[in-house]
Amino acid sequence: MQFTDPATLSKAELESGSVFAPKFDANGLVTAITVEAGTNEILMVAHMNAEAIAETLGSGYATYWSRSRAKLWKKGESSGELQELVEMRTDCDQDAIILVVRQTGHGAACHTGRKSCFYRKVEGSDGEVRLVDTGEPRLFDPADVYRR
Amino acid sequence: MQFTDPATLSKAELESGSVFAPKFDANGLVTAITVEAGTNEILMVAHMNAEAIAETLGSGYATYWSRSRAKLWKKGESSGELQELVEMRTDCDQDAIILVVRQTGHGAACHTGRKSCFYRKVEGSDGEVRLVDTGEPRLFDPADVYRR
Repeated sequence: MQFTDPATLSKAELESGSVFAPKFDANGLVTAITVEAGTNEILMVAHMNAEAIAETLGSGYATYWSRSRAKLWKKGESSGELQELVEMRTDCDQDAIILVVRQTGHGAACHTGRKSCFYRKVEGSDGEVRLVDTGEPRLFDPADVYRR
Repeated sequence: MQFTDPATLSKAELESGSVFAPKFDANGLVTAITVEAGTNEILMVAHMNAEAIAETLGSGYATYWSRSRAKLWKKGESSGELQELVEMRTDCDQDAIILVVRQTGHGAACHTGRKSCFYRKVEGSDGEVRLVDTGEPRLFDPADVYRR
């Protein structure tokens, strides 16, 4: 799958047109935000390169680029927590993507076993800032899942 | 406001602790995803540096780092579309932030005048991929708002 280079489009074409021209950064990546279909809850944030986008659209399952492992990463290939693609969106300047998914498996997108990676809120406003756990339960035991 | 260097924390402290230690990238930025309080709808994606985080927590209004203008950017300072902070969250490895906000003004987070920047979906799966506008209305006329 070849994507149009966004630099070849006018601002109006990029922002209002029908040409999908992801604006990859210097590392060839766009930000991908994964949300749960129905609730809009943000499950995780990751990155995608051109191949990951093509693979996700072609297979119907969320596939990312793992920066730490420097390889294509089909979400759930180790944990079983596959994400079925319901809809893909992009934003005005096409440098970010939303994946609306149905989370399979235990329903945990986070490697810690929680549904969402965003299980802590920031409290306080000056000097005294701290993280507070919102109490999201662990739906699987990472020590068990990633040992396999 | 000083933030702890995440490199000084153990993986367990980073992922489960109460120390807010944003993992800034090589440019000193983390990804910020802004969602509407109540609906969880993603309004926009931007970036924050340490100063933007501190300013947002201190003022109660979403403030980002504008990469294109290379300066602190209080959302709405030109357009009037201020975003009142309801809650800030971070993810397991602390390299992304969610801002839960109440969008003021016309209710439009996007510079195109739409509520959300994600007004187009990606359709098709191979070769024939295109963007389809979801029909979100423009709540203000950018030519009018940004002329001021």
